[in-house]
Amino acid sequence: MGTTTNPYELHLDQNPANYVPLTPVSFLQRAARVFPDYTSVIHGQRRFTWKETDARSRRLASALAQRGISTGDTVAFLAHNTPEMYEAHFGVPMIGAVLNAINTRLDADAIAFILDHGEAKVLITDREFGELVTHILGKVFYKPLVIYIDDPECENPGPKIGECDYEAFIAAGDPAYQWALPANEWDAIALNYTSGTTGNPKGVVYSHRGAYLTAVSNALDWGMGPHPVILSNVPLFHCNGWCFPWTVAMTAGTFVCQRRVSAKVIYDAIADHKVAYVNGAPIVLGMILNAKEEEKRSFDHIVNVMTAAAPPPASVLASMEQQGFRVTHVYGLTETYGPSVVCAWKEEWDHGDIEEKARLKARQGVPYTLQFDLMVADATTMQPVPADGETIGEVFCRGNQVMRGYLKNPRASDEAFAGGWFHTGDLGVMHPDGYIQLKDRSKDIIISGGENISSIEVEGVLHKHPSVALAAVVAKPDIKWGETPCAFVELKPGHNLTVEDIIAHCKANLAGFKCPRDVRFGDLPKTSTGKIQKYVLRKQLQDEVGDSVPL
Amino acid sequence: MGTTTNPYELHLDQNPANYVPLTPVSFLQRAARVFPDYTSVIHGQRRFTWKETDARSRRLASALAQRGISTGDTVAFLAHNTPEMYEAHFGVPMIGAVLNAINTRLDADAIAFILDHGEAKVLITDREFGELVTHILGKVFYKPLVIYIDDPECENPGPKIGECDYEAFIAAGDPAYQWALPANEWDAIALNYTSGTTGNPKGVVYSHRGAYLTAVSNALDWGMGPHPVILSNVPLFHCNGWCFPWTVAMTAGTFVCQRRVSAKVIYDAIADHKVAYVNGAPIVLGMILNAKEEEKRSFDHIVNVMTAAAPPPASVLASMEQQGFRVTHVYGLTETYGPSVVCAWKEEWDHGDIEEKARLKARQGVPYTLQFDLMVADATTMQPVPADGETIGEVFCRGNQVMRGYLKNPRASDEAFAGGWFHTGDLGVMHPDGYIQLKDRSKDIIISGGENISSIEVEGVLHKHPSVALAAVVAKPDIKWGETPCAFVELKPGHNLTVEDIIAHCKANLAGFKCPRDVRFGDLPKTSTGKIQKYVLRKQLQDEVGDSVPL
Repeated sequence: MGTTTNPYELHLDQNPANYVPLTPVSFLQRAARVFPDYTSVIHGQRRFTWKETDARSRRLASALAQRGISTGDTVAFLAHNTPEMYEAHFGVPMIGAVLNAINTRLDADAIAFILDHGEAKVLITDREFGELVTHILGKVFYKPLVIYIDDPECENPGPKIGECDYEAFIAAGDPAYQWALPANEWDAIALNYTSGTTGNPKGVVYSHRGAYLTAVSNALDWGMGPHPVILSNVPLFHCNGWCFPWTVAMTAGTFVCQRRVSAKVIYDAIADHKVAYVNGAPIVLGMILNAKEEEKRSFDHIVNVMTAAAPPPASVLASMEQQGFRVTHVYGLTETYGPSVVCAWKEEWDHGDIEEKARLKARQGVPYTLQFDLMVADATTMQPVPADGETIGEVFCRGNQVMRGYLKNPRASDEAFAGGWFHTGDLGVMHPDGYIQLKDRSKDIIISGGENISSIEVEGVLHKHPSVALAAVVAKPDIKWGETPCAFVELKPGHNLTVEDIIAHCKANLAGFKCPRDVRFGDLPKTSTGKIQKYVLRKQLQDEVGDSVPL
Repeated sequence: MGTTTNPYELHLDQNPANYVPLTPVSFLQRAARVFPDYTSVIHGQRRFTWKETDARSRRLASALAQRGISTGDTVAFLAHNTPEMYEAHFGVPMIGAVLNAINTRLDADAIAFILDHGEAKVLITDREFGELVTHILGKVFYKPLVIYIDDPECENPGPKIGECDYEAFIAAGDPAYQWALPANEWDAIALNYTSGTTGNPKGVVYSHRGAYLTAVSNALDWGMGPHPVILSNVPLFHCNGWCFPWTVAMTAGTFVCQRRVSAKVIYDAIADHKVAYVNGAPIVLGMILNAKEEEKRSFDHIVNVMTAAAPPPASVLASMEQQGFRVTHVYGLTETYGPSVVCAWKEEWDHGDIEEKARLKARQGVPYTLQFDLMVADATTMQPVPADGETIGEVFCRGNQVMRGYLKNPRASDEAFAGGWFHTGDLGVMHPDGYIQLKDRSKDIIISGGENISSIEVEGVLHKHPSVALAAVVAKPDIKWGETPCAFVELKPGHNLTVEDIIAHCKANLAGFKCPRDVRFGDLPKTSTGKIQKYVLRKQLQDEVGDSVPL
């Protein structure tokens, strides 16, 4: 029966004609070639075409190369969502360098740590951060080349720190610079530090391949046609704006910049630029709904809103839909290039009432089209839990939308990948129809009298109360029960509630053991990306209890 | 400045969590998990869901594995576009085997050659070909396991040749069979023999990676949203139906089968199954437009029609649009997984008149979104021609949508990939806006008195004549001019024209030297895939001329 050698292994190798490393930089090449005069980027009074964005990105690559930057070198950005930051997503990888977009809300110590850890050779910063940069430069061990962005839209420019401004820097570059494909599609394209609620942040490394496939899947999973106009309320320093800069190039769409998210910015972008895609943290939904009348603008197209992790309550969803917004719920982590799970919507669900729709949409969902696999499993044995919508396990995923690992942190990488799956650290359930739903971060679960209490579930009930603006529930040490739920509540302006009101509301909506025993009112501590810092709340409770409870 | 080692090379390797070989089989896994009850495949009275297609594909994989078929083994199909053939696109690669879908219009000798050359271990055939299979089995050197498909829709079943029928064969397989990812995404997934106008056909080898990326790009470049319903008039033995079986799984759409293309089949599929995507050779456009009134059905959605290589004339395009069809023009070869070039449409072109739109749409266009590069260049020096829409060169492409090579034909592979580009053998021009337009196959160009004459251009003029059904123009040896154009013309039924009519029509529309000196009327010889066999016409002319012209 045939030859003994597999004939498909003979003289059918990869060569430059039939194998090209996947890199999202190729999307820019195509956009500039096929749609040279289409609008690529809008920022205030500035407006670029794909031909221009391509030339500017090549100039940036060329200028960096002139300064000796090359493969495996880190180029850091400390900037808002401006055209320069957009171009960095192409110009930096064009020379094989790695883009490290840094969270602008961090303090000088944290940023200095990141620059040193990432060994950044270049730091490109917005003038707004001039003072901060001075402090940072006083702290870093490796001194990077510093360039500043002098954005005319900047309302509070600080001192000009650095060698020259960005425009002068790239003016020295060649607009026709011939960039090379990465030697390997596994090569690093970006470095993103996790916000790190405890300890030093970890540097998540993205590959060209992963960025490429995420960019494509974004378009598939959000149902984006050609030339979408998108306002990214996700900062580009957060998972590279969920990889949407690359998606926009692939679709030859338009990327609308902003220096600061606000209701006015969102509505103006929708009305003035026909933005049809808006992404952002759940807070963006609130901004849209609670905009003042003078901020709202009318529009006559559907605006798609992608929001992550925190499911929109039914009332929010209903209001959004009435006002012409269509919400897509996604879930992911920095380690998964941003969203890699989507609550893929089924037409037949359109017929349910709004409560039912909200219940379905509250689920995080299924793997992205180009992500490979997702499971909820016992954290130790890694055996999948029953798909009963009840049994809590850890969420695991695997596929090309998982990071290469943590930079210079082999132990953390090994832990994250133990058993051949990425450990998200999130707890959830698997519903019978294959959709997952998050129940908690593993460290946020409350164990009271041996029973697991999902802080997300209790928070969901609190958020249904019309006077509650924001709520967080954490474990309070308890001699009898081990832990009990304690609620921290921010009320809406002009509203008043008592502890008893909150507890009564919870008792009406929750099993008794899940109800908070303790309720505190006041502003909640948040990270620079707007996440509630539960560890601060937990620490506060532990400090109060002091040594009275063995921990 | 930092360490001397590239930190991105350390302990950031591929592992099962963060690297999964690209394979379109994963699309079936996702469709079955997320949309288990959505309709996957429709054929006559049969209708399957994704859960069922997944189970049947696993049964096929399992049944093949039970018979010792494994990685690198070829499984041949001689079948129409039926559910069994659809399942083969998943069941065969699930075990690492290679699908060889064979052109059903070939004769026993050609098929025997293909089976032996591809070393097929299994042959699965439709009963319609029972007699043919008997002949084939008398000719092959390697005797494959033979299974027959007993399709209830078959109107002329032949003898049952083989061990058992397909249903019995897969019934022995496990519907929960645990398939494995390919060891390498470069592994072969399919083997497609070119129709081969001269000499023995060549076996084009596709990889899992290429099939995956083509499947994705199909959806992007045709603007397919979720759950498209498609009627493939492209036979699945032709570039695996341009890789659309995999696209349909990725989008959890519906694949509508047919045993034979006809106007009635097309209209019924559109009206009964809400087919919104129809692909096929240019002849399909004619079928749609020239359908009898009793074959036509009304519908109230847009039907997208993808057609390859031969540009639709303005009149055809206008009629199509009036009747609710939207035509997308693509170009590719078996070697590029089917279409890899698309005439990407620009909204601003909608405002032109129909002649202008037809002129723009007649161009083959730009690389597919996930294809890397395309150029028109001098065939010898490989220097790009000026983008003037005039200078003719050979069309070259490179990217992941290029075959691995020709099976057991290293010389042909090396020639095809010389210089790091795939040589299409087609001649074309590059327009100033970056869109290519085909002018001819390199062997079809006519060189008359040192001037190049594009046979496609002359044919285009002939096709504009209202009485001409089909025309082919080839070189006729000529003592004075070297070659002159000779036209072969099929007239529409009931129409009459003289040679003088044709020549006058050409003179009114073409430069004098491009006008045919000779015109012949009659049916044109066609390949089994409907291509005109110009080599037959050329040979006829050469035989006539005999030795009178030195060749």
